[in-house]
Amino acid sequence: MTDQTAAPRDMANAIRALAMDAVQQADSGHPGMPMGMADVATVLFSKFLKFDASEPNWPDRDRFILSAGHGSMLLYSLLHLTGYADMTLDELKKFRQLGARTAGHPEYGHASGIETTTGPLGQGLGNSVGFALAERALSERFGRDIVDHFTYVIAGDGCLMEGVGQEAITLAGHLGLGRLIVLFDDNGISIDGPTSLSTSEDHKKRFAAAGWHVLSVDGHDAEAVTRAIRKARNVTDKPSLIACKTVIGYGAPTKAGTAATHGSPLGKDEIAGARAKLGWNHGPFDIPEAIFSAWRKIGARGKSARRKWNKNLAAMAPEDRAEFDRRQKGDLPPAVGEAIAAFKAKLASDKPSWATRKSSQEALEVINPVLPDTIGGSADLTGSNNTKTATLKGASRTDTAGRYIYYGIREHAMAAAMNGMALHGGVIPYGGTFMVFTDYCRPSIRLSALMGVRVIYVMTHDSIGLGEDGPTHQPVEHLPALRAIPNLQVLRPADAIETAECWQIALEAKHVPSVLALTRQNLPTVRGAGDENLCAKGAYILAGDESAPIRLIASGSEVQLALAARDLLAQEGKAAAVVSMPSWELFAAQDDSYRTKVMGGDGTVRVACEAATGFGWERWLGSKGAFVGMKGFGASAKASDLYKHFGITAEAIAEAVRRLAQ
Amino acid sequence: MTDQTAAPRDMANAIRALAMDAVQQADSGHPGMPMGMADVATVLFSKFLKFDASEPNWPDRDRFILSAGHGSMLLYSLLHLTGYADMTLDELKKFRQLGARTAGHPEYGHASGIETTTGPLGQGLGNSVGFALAERALSERFGRDIVDHFTYVIAGDGCLMEGVGQEAITLAGHLGLGRLIVLFDDNGISIDGPTSLSTSEDHKKRFAAAGWHVLSVDGHDAEAVTRAIRKARNVTDKPSLIACKTVIGYGAPTKAGTAATHGSPLGKDEIAGARAKLGWNHGPFDIPEAIFSAWRKIGARGKSARRKWNKNLAAMAPEDRAEFDRRQKGDLPPAVGEAIAAFKAKLASDKPSWATRKSSQEALEVINPVLPDTIGGSADLTGSNNTKTATLKGASRTDTAGRYIYYGIREHAMAAAMNGMALHGGVIPYGGTFMVFTDYCRPSIRLSALMGVRVIYVMTHDSIGLGEDGPTHQPVEHLPALRAIPNLQVLRPADAIETAECWQIALEAKHVPSVLALTRQNLPTVRGAGDENLCAKGAYILAGDESAPIRLIASGSEVQLALAARDLLAQEGKAAAVVSMPSWELFAAQDDSYRTKVMGGDGTVRVACEAATGFGWERWLGSKGAFVGMKGFGASAKASDLYKHFGITAEAIAEAVRRLAQ
Repeated sequence: MTDQTAAPRDMANAIRALAMDAVQQADSGHPGMPMGMADVATVLFSKFLKFDASEPNWPDRDRFILSAGHGSMLLYSLLHLTGYADMTLDELKKFRQLGARTAGHPEYGHASGIETTTGPLGQGLGNSVGFALAERALSERFGRDIVDHFTYVIAGDGCLMEGVGQEAITLAGHLGLGRLIVLFDDNGISIDGPTSLSTSEDHKKRFAAAGWHVLSVDGHDAEAVTRAIRKARNVTDKPSLIACKTVIGYGAPTKAGTAATHGSPLGKDEIAGARAKLGWNHGPFDIPEAIFSAWRKIGARGKSARRKWNKNLAAMAPEDRAEFDRRQKGDLPPAVGEAIAAFKAKLASDKPSWATRKSSQEALEVINPVLPDTIGGSADLTGSNNTKTATLKGASRTDTAGRYIYYGIREHAMAAAMNGMALHGGVIPYGGTFMVFTDYCRPSIRLSALMGVRVIYVMTHDSIGLGEDGPTHQPVEHLPALRAIPNLQVLRPADAIETAECWQIALEAKHVPSVLALTRQNLPTVRGAGDENLCAKGAYILAGDESAPIRLIASGSEVQLALAARDLLAQEGKAAAVVSMPSWELFAAQDDSYRTKVMGGDGTVRVACEAATGFGWERWLGSKGAFVGMKGFGASAKASDLYKHFGITAEAIAEAVRRLAQ
Repeated sequence: MTDQTAAPRDMANAIRALAMDAVQQADSGHPGMPMGMADVATVLFSKFLKFDASEPNWPDRDRFILSAGHGSMLLYSLLHLTGYADMTLDELKKFRQLGARTAGHPEYGHASGIETTTGPLGQGLGNSVGFALAERALSERFGRDIVDHFTYVIAGDGCLMEGVGQEAITLAGHLGLGRLIVLFDDNGISIDGPTSLSTSEDHKKRFAAAGWHVLSVDGHDAEAVTRAIRKARNVTDKPSLIACKTVIGYGAPTKAGTAATHGSPLGKDEIAGARAKLGWNHGPFDIPEAIFSAWRKIGARGKSARRKWNKNLAAMAPEDRAEFDRRQKGDLPPAVGEAIAAFKAKLASDKPSWATRKSSQEALEVINPVLPDTIGGSADLTGSNNTKTATLKGASRTDTAGRYIYYGIREHAMAAAMNGMALHGGVIPYGGTFMVFTDYCRPSIRLSALMGVRVIYVMTHDSIGLGEDGPTHQPVEHLPALRAIPNLQVLRPADAIETAECWQIALEAKHVPSVLALTRQNLPTVRGAGDENLCAKGAYILAGDESAPIRLIASGSEVQLALAARDLLAQEGKAAAVVSMPSWELFAAQDDSYRTKVMGGDGTVRVACEAATGFGWERWLGSKGAFVGMKGFGASAKASDLYKHFGITAEAIAEAVRRLAQ
């Protein structure tokens, strides 16, 4: 299918040249990987990848994930050569400069064709599990006429060494994701030198042990790569690994095959030598017209498939079409808001004493039936995280329509896969583990925030309130550590009504990931209903009024303590208002006057209480403030004993007020 | 070797009964795993494990690591039965209660015989790599007469699914840790149900692919387990996996083999049924004398080996003996302090403009030769983290004396292994990666802090100052996120002299882990030398004096900006003192008067500057404070462009002062 006027090797050399030149010009970057994988990428793009450079967001395009993100110039070169409008030559020349689309590592949103942000190794591989899962779920719903694409990944040694990569491998193998094809850049080199310094893994056996279809080829033999990809596409019940034996920095006369090409410019002499060796007699950034034109044809190759797809789309039943469009846009059906409103009204009447994890499940029981977009799951804590609702069935190799993923004890791959699902579009992923294990998936949570994708983390057992499992399982620093991540909503509701509101906030935030911090232990209902989503303001006066000279501020399970402390103080004639503060981020986004109303002006006595360390609370306390909470790690005991032991009580809050109000 | 009066099955049933009873009494806990692995553990302890319950800290004991920490009652039962003095029956009865040694998960330091804190899955397996590495390194140094022991691990499905476990497996296989033997509790059950819900891994093939010696047995066949462990001990160039097919909750009449035994008490009826089924006709916590006595003999079995070892110790050359004792105690040789003092004096004279990562390497160049305890390494960033000094050789399967570990792209296993080394004793581990990848190993950093072990994290590229690699590689929230972890020293030195001081602090902190946050970019020398370690106070006045009404507070690479801002302000007649603040934790530990001297009293204008988000800085700013730093994620560009772009400049600091001082 490639243009006869340009040999595949020349087309690959165009990638090599652009990668060498851009890295040299930036005086920074990683030329080795693009040069090594240029042949493989040329085969993939020219013969298999379904895409149309003029419509980068065509929903049924194949996804191409550069998990080895340091090789970003491979991707940028391909996007430029195939004709993505925003990837101009000028952008390549501005590689790694401020404001360029061509950041050091591929950044989602900087340019079309960048399907995900990669660089932290193993993440792209983890994302790809989510891409493939989303594709499978959507094709079950909308049919193969509408959703029918592959997910291709280029992964390096680092992706396979990282734990998140390993978790992704075993998860993908288990789920039988046949439309996932990983091209492993098996170059035997990492930054420190030959990979023999640090690993003795037999990668092919490893993937086979995880249930993958495994192939290996010479990554510089275009015909062999073609045959391998073709075989991989034909195996539909297993993901495929194609181990591509390559030479890193292929073409560099003295540095090829060494770590010297990995993360530094080659240098002028070496580049000149590479040009000679590759027979590439063209200046920096100069691509001969024949080669450029052949690449542009590849960029347009998908047009006919896209036209056919458009016809399929037009032929859909109107209600299916509307549903497909809605899910692509990521809008919620109106039924969601209605269901949550009705649920809140019922809760206000029932006043249940549920753990907020249970409240979360009950909220999901009303959401999931009217929001088919959700794909739930848990990292082997389904019954503890309360993430599975009555109508959700488990997904598996054979039940490909299931909307619930048993992720196993793989928090990191769960989070990375959820990023992939959210990026794919058409689905809304949520997944649970214990709050303390946010640490196990923190790199992926960070990427959710950096990319701005709607992933919902259901993090239960959110404090010492989990009791006997002890300090290894009790988050104490996790609330501040998560609040410290930019563009992440941390939501810690105080009862069933707030939990429903927080779910609504999380679902409506198209471009922000959310962490729901939920209790193991039961909590009383403290809120009335009402149409307004009070949690959406981040904090609000729950009891008392703004004239009170004292504010008792709390979130989640400690709101009940603040309310009890208010009663204690009232007996002493001290008027306090209780502020429920489920989200710092949302409160910080309110205007000054609202914030002052809620927190009181200068001189207001403010005592905050959370069963977590107070790191960062000074921000809200002002000059007459105190914090009641944890000072270090927790302990193993009954929750009620621990609250007393660590002095997190209504009396301690009242006493702090007395000291400040003296 | 077991006592003839008690059958192995009865001895194992003693464990089962104690586990059932303690969990039932606590009304909380995990009986299934101890019941399933009781037979395997009985074989291990009765026939192989080298230990003496009367001397739990005998340096040459075999190490037993319960990686599946939720099965803590297995360990507590064994410690009680074999006669560890502090593991009384009363402690078992107080399982999971406040103040008991028998926490929900094994907590290092709570009782002797608990070699490490486990519970977060995969961590014990990661630790075990460090234990085995430390053993190998020390036996190279002191000979097999003195250091000659095995590391045994019990791991569950969760340990093998977790990324950290997978990283540990490939690392151990690569390093050929022949004295590491993992007993895998292959019970096919996780919390969510059968493991077939979430994994299709062929574990034996997976370990084989990583270079392990692999065996499998019926875990309830004591003879088969005996033969397998014997074989495993004889393979000395590969770690061994023994997959033990077991029935979780073995003996429970209706629940055995199901997830119902995993994490909940069995209930009275089920326990009665189990007693009947197992033929265990004894009351709760009641162990017949014959069985108890047989277990106690096992606890004393190691006495003769220990006596022999004591003779070997006595026969050592005096200087070797002194060195061995010093390293066991974890004391530093006086030469370390002297070398650092001399190095500081030289730096004060040379005033180098080094990146602090380079300063760290130069400090290590003087430390490593006089401190043979160190075992360095990096997660595939050796040349970037500057962790390898001239005299360190890489450790490998064949070079077992090497003091440098090429950890590969396995940050999490690196950290977990370092915890294991520190716990083993006799060595001081340090290891490097990029600061942003503290997220990749955060669960292990947390455990370093929770256990209070001397692990030194060399985290370079600590801000946007790393430049072009962009936001995925630029830490912005990591300083606050690490400072939020209790009992962790975060040290961010401003120049070569402070870096040397921070290394000294880290090395001298026997019971606190340290994170060194180091720059990629060059920094001027801002400090003079002098004998005192000024960084040890956490913050100090670097320029100006305490009478100044303005404080400019900074750490690391931003101290130079504070100094420049001071000059700008001086031109306007405003007197400011610059506070270098390498460590919040150490400063918080100073007395009030010192803190007031450094920060000034109420009303002092304080402007802090760090190339990180300001999360938490309100703590130090008081009523007239401002922070100059990051507000969100970074970007890909030259470091100098980024500092300007994000407004982190001397002028911005001066301007913040002007606004506050109006």
